[in-house]
Amino acid sequence: MIPSRLRIVLVSPRNPLNIGAAARAMSNFGFFDLHLVNAYDVAFREARSAVNAAAVLQNAREHSSLASALDGCSLVVGTTAAAHRQLQHPLRRLEAGGRLLRAHLASAPAALLFGSEKFGLGNDDMSYCHWLLRIPSRPEHPSMNLGQAVAVSLYELIRQSRAPQPETRRPAPAEDLDRLSALLEQALLASGYAHANSTPAKIRRLIRRLNPGLHDAEVLQGMLRQILWKLSGS
Amino acid sequence: MIPSRLRIVLVSPRNPLNIGAAARAMSNFGFFDLHLVNAYDVAFREARSAVNAAAVLQNAREHSSLASALDGCSLVVGTTAAAHRQLQHPLRRLEAGGRLLRAHLASAPAALLFGSEKFGLGNDDMSYCHWLLRIPSRPEHPSMNLGQAVAVSLYELIRQSRAPQPETRRPAPAEDLDRLSALLEQALLASGYAHANSTPAKIRRLIRRLNPGLHDAEVLQGMLRQILWKLSGS
Repeated sequence: MIPSRLRIVLVSPRNPLNIGAAARAMSNFGFFDLHLVNAYDVAFREARSAVNAAAVLQNAREHSSLASALDGCSLVVGTTAAAHRQLQHPLRRLEAGGRLLRAHLASAPAALLFGSEKFGLGNDDMSYCHWLLRIPSRPEHPSMNLGQAVAVSLYELIRQSRAPQPETRRPAPAEDLDRLSALLEQALLASGYAHANSTPAKIRRLIRRLNPGLHDAEVLQGMLRQILWKLSGS
Repeated sequence: MIPSRLRIVLVSPRNPLNIGAAARAMSNFGFFDLHLVNAYDVAFREARSAVNAAAVLQNAREHSSLASALDGCSLVVGTTAAAHRQLQHPLRRLEAGGRLLRAHLASAPAALLFGSEKFGLGNDDMSYCHWLLRIPSRPEHPSMNLGQAVAVSLYELIRQSRAPQPETRRPAPAEDLDRLSALLEQALLASGYAHANSTPAKIRRLIRRLNPGLHDAEVLQGMLRQILWKLSGS
């Protein structure tokens, strides 16, 4: 596990204290790559100017879209408090998910997403995720404070355990999966495929579940380009 | 491990938000016995009256001395951020200390102590402890936020140490993958895609690597049938 390969992405955080707490936990556990998507401006400025603002916060990057915050990440994991909500994604407990994430970070970059304090990650945000992670909180009171959720998740990653098995396949980065999703969407449109399965979010989720490696993602893009060219030309 | 046997003791906490955060983490992870020693009065009252104050906080007990907060506990563990300070006590990392604490809680009550935000536990407080626990934070930035330290410590106690990782997805049977391979092959042929990647064997292997689940395999077949129909009709 190489901590510098993990990107922490806070989506729509609203409370400067929580942003600061997330940054502090990152610094405590040796993670330094913080990204914020649609952060409430005042909150971010306030957090950044706090006396104890860690270097993490000073170097945090802002984005106006989730997609741009995921550039270069070949694994995207969302966090959720929902144990039973109908989810479109594989859901893993932190213990098991942490092992997978550690194994991935041994060879390639990944992003770990946290949603807003009030609503968590939305369905659209989740459609960018390969799978979801759940901290094993009590079903009667599952929702955790944002800063505490970040702290617990990162602790699981750095805690000492037996050695995880490394991933051998080279995973495809997020932008490749985005291009692939867009190409499939266009091909389906051009073919007249009209179905509840063909919304952009559903297609993104489908591609994440298939999770092609770097090489396969390229091959599939080539195939779809050819199909699309033929469909468009007809 | 019986969670009701663990008493969380905050010694001289000063910030109502931290008291509230500690109580919230306790509720998240199923611990309900909170005691405060020499809490700053205003802070405690403020935390208690917060909108989201958990039942934990409502039932918290106040003490004017640490000794009285430890009544009935046959193991007392203090937390510290100091990895190298000269300590008079055995110091254990959270992973190992958590195991001992869990084992004790299987048969008898224990207390876990957290010091004030600024100074941690004093020498006098530590003299009541059997041993000390250290969350494995970075030596360059060891000091954690109080609420986060409580959350991480309790997570270690409730986390599953064994490895359960059942596959939830229903896998697609071989014949579905064969049909999918054949459809992709036909679509590529109809689109004029000519490439070393498009031999039947390579396509079958590609589909196996993607390894779609039962439902996704059906969705992909539907998509390819529509694309193929459109390509052939043109």
